[in-house]
Amino acid sequence: MQEVINYIENNQQNYIEELKEFLKIPSISTSIENKSEVNRCADFVASKLKDAGMSHVEIFKTEGHPLVYGEWLGAPGKPTVLIYGHYDVQPADPIELWDSPPFEPVIKDGKIFARGATDDKGQVFMHIKSVEAFFKVEGSLPLNVKFIIEGEEEIGSENLEPFIIQHLELLKCDAVLISDTALYEEGIPTLTYGLRGLSYMEVEVTGPQRDLHSGTFGGAVGNPINVLAEMIAKLHDKNGRITIPHFYDDVLTLTKKEKDNFKRLKFSEKKFAKELGVAELTGEKGFSSLERTWVRPTLDCNGITGGFTGQGAKTVIASKALAKISMRLVPNQDPVKVAKEFEKYIKKIAPKTVKVTVKNLHGAYPVLIPLTDHSTIAATKAMEKAFGKKMVFIREGGSVPIVTTFVKKLKAPTVLMGLGLNSENLHSPNEHFNLNHFRLGIISSAYFLKEYSL
Amino acid sequence: MQEVINYIENNQQNYIEELKEFLKIPSISTSIENKSEVNRCADFVASKLKDAGMSHVEIFKTEGHPLVYGEWLGAPGKPTVLIYGHYDVQPADPIELWDSPPFEPVIKDGKIFARGATDDKGQVFMHIKSVEAFFKVEGSLPLNVKFIIEGEEEIGSENLEPFIIQHLELLKCDAVLISDTALYEEGIPTLTYGLRGLSYMEVEVTGPQRDLHSGTFGGAVGNPINVLAEMIAKLHDKNGRITIPHFYDDVLTLTKKEKDNFKRLKFSEKKFAKELGVAELTGEKGFSSLERTWVRPTLDCNGITGGFTGQGAKTVIASKALAKISMRLVPNQDPVKVAKEFEKYIKKIAPKTVKVTVKNLHGAYPVLIPLTDHSTIAATKAMEKAFGKKMVFIREGGSVPIVTTFVKKLKAPTVLMGLGLNSENLHSPNEHFNLNHFRLGIISSAYFLKEYSL
Repeated sequence: MQEVINYIENNQQNYIEELKEFLKIPSISTSIENKSEVNRCADFVASKLKDAGMSHVEIFKTEGHPLVYGEWLGAPGKPTVLIYGHYDVQPADPIELWDSPPFEPVIKDGKIFARGATDDKGQVFMHIKSVEAFFKVEGSLPLNVKFIIEGEEEIGSENLEPFIIQHLELLKCDAVLISDTALYEEGIPTLTYGLRGLSYMEVEVTGPQRDLHSGTFGGAVGNPINVLAEMIAKLHDKNGRITIPHFYDDVLTLTKKEKDNFKRLKFSEKKFAKELGVAELTGEKGFSSLERTWVRPTLDCNGITGGFTGQGAKTVIASKALAKISMRLVPNQDPVKVAKEFEKYIKKIAPKTVKVTVKNLHGAYPVLIPLTDHSTIAATKAMEKAFGKKMVFIREGGSVPIVTTFVKKLKAPTVLMGLGLNSENLHSPNEHFNLNHFRLGIISSAYFLKEYSL
Repeated sequence: MQEVINYIENNQQNYIEELKEFLKIPSISTSIENKSEVNRCADFVASKLKDAGMSHVEIFKTEGHPLVYGEWLGAPGKPTVLIYGHYDVQPADPIELWDSPPFEPVIKDGKIFARGATDDKGQVFMHIKSVEAFFKVEGSLPLNVKFIIEGEEEIGSENLEPFIIQHLELLKCDAVLISDTALYEEGIPTLTYGLRGLSYMEVEVTGPQRDLHSGTFGGAVGNPINVLAEMIAKLHDKNGRITIPHFYDDVLTLTKKEKDNFKRLKFSEKKFAKELGVAELTGEKGFSSLERTWVRPTLDCNGITGGFTGQGAKTVIASKALAKISMRLVPNQDPVKVAKEFEKYIKKIAPKTVKVTVKNLHGAYPVLIPLTDHSTIAATKAMEKAFGKKMVFIREGGSVPIVTTFVKKLKAPTVLMGLGLNSENLHSPNEHFNLNHFRLGIISSAYFLKEYSL
């Protein structure tokens, strides 16, 4: 194993040169004009998988951008790992805010700057190189490996879930390995083992059948904006708890071990508030900010509109008001059930002076990967060896819908071995990737393949 | 006097022909392209005042459209009436919804159809014709008369108040007569003796200093939309009363006489609800809809905006949310005082998790004309004679800021002798004016000049 690691250490310069070629391809999935570049990028990934030693590589066409598949199944009796990543990138706008051109990679202060550096080209490339190192040094892998690398992550992965459902046998595996999240802090090995789900609703309140003059009618008719505001206010109690019946029924309590893990992270509430520019934090009573964002469900109004909102004064009582209201869900809440309870409750608290319509716009299941799973234990050992530091276990407040699909459809535990940093400007100008993390990521990946094979 | 009335009755056809000429001029004050038509209209009004018998007529230039002034002061020792009206009109859009061209008057079913027919050309013309009838029949007026007819009412009368303040002596009078409001019902002589005032505020709530991802941050930070909704909800109590301290301190209670007057109007709450398309009416507990719109102060959200309001779902926590909130005021509330109390209270109920800024966009004083004033009594007698029916006394939920200016600056009681109907499509396509009301208005005006001179 040490030879594999030495090989990786000695080939850093080559890896960076190859990564530069990868980053030069403007594979912007949302841009129609870049379609041929997206295809060229899929070809690039396929050729890199072949060069790395995959025995079978195939590009699958979809209704959108192609999926790149690769496999090496030469370790019968050993487990199979499916490595997921994406080769598409966000647009580069606003391009004038970049210090160097987004598709001309530049290295500065140990970081490589380019669109897609950390999200996700740099991270997916780590695994291709760790696999290659095994083949170069040992001629084989310690277990079976499959790659599925898509070109539509930045536009919602629309064609990936149908592909998975249609290719369950092809993608069958014992664990899924993904590097598309972030380290808790620079140089700290981190495993994300929980993601929140989502229930995203739209509520429309209709009062009078047309806009009214607030002088002539004001005071005698239910104003849909005031009514909507009152309904939103009723969705939380004084302690910041959500008032929807049965909302907390399926919420798992944090274990003592998780609580202790979070405490060791030494999160500064003061620094957090300062960074957000608020005088005071708030949220569900009795929980820390980390708990509020990682393990507690929430309800937020994401948008509201109604009446006159231009410059100056218009004395109108609007006929309609609309709010987008989303709930972040935690294990084991079910977005289907939550959406139903939400609709029932919001209609119940609406006064008879208005009509209420509710749309369920989007749902995503929360994810919790058991810390006791073999894949988690292997990942922990691997990253601790690579970094020489103790692993921290975190959760993430957002959703990664594809993880739910892997967990639900492939029935495989998922390892979120993210090597990025939240400060690396993903989706913003001057995106970059820490090259020390790139190196540690390749080593972590190699150790993982070994550990998980045992 | 009967001869004057007979003269008016006998000249209806001429009056209608002249009114048609007035209505043919597209004096749209908001339209720059119509500037010369607006000027032509001022000239038309001036010539009609001269023809009617005014001894001095003058067109005053302003920074906007001209003001037409006329006077006849040949009755020393007698009171002076200032007649106000406007010759400008609303735009005609959407023009395709008109059954006949807006500036080609057409008579159908006893109504004259044209832009400005009821608002306000038809109504202001009634007074010019009643004055003319006196001169034709008696060679003089029973009292002194001044006219001030503006060309900017539909765009906010911006230049009228400064003109009044600069010409207090010129405009000095004992009463102001205005016909620019509506009858309670067809054929029912109506006097509007109360108008609500206004305090129009804008409230901006700022939470985090930038928009945040609702997954990463949701639950740990004050969401300005939710906070604003909660603040709006707190502005009313369970009984529909406004919770701002001292808000009701200066509110006059309805007198027994007024209450009885309102009851006699036989207002149908059911019909009102049906017309608005609502299942249930609402408002301050213990008051009828007429009381709620005419004599009780209100608070309405006229607009609200924040976050993402496009199609679909965006998981954002907005940095800012904004609401336009206006209060309709009743005698003797003071918009300056109310605005101060509002700002103090809204800041007090804001949690420390947000910053709140408040702008005072607009204020107008409420108006209450004593039913015992000589001008009111004269108007009542005049209209009852003309219509042959008992007068009804109503209030109006909206504001007519110019009335406040007359009351405050000229210290003159105002008679709101409106002959329009709310159903006459003012500001909409197919605006019209009931020609029987036009006739009754000229007669009412003549009787008023006589009665008020006594």
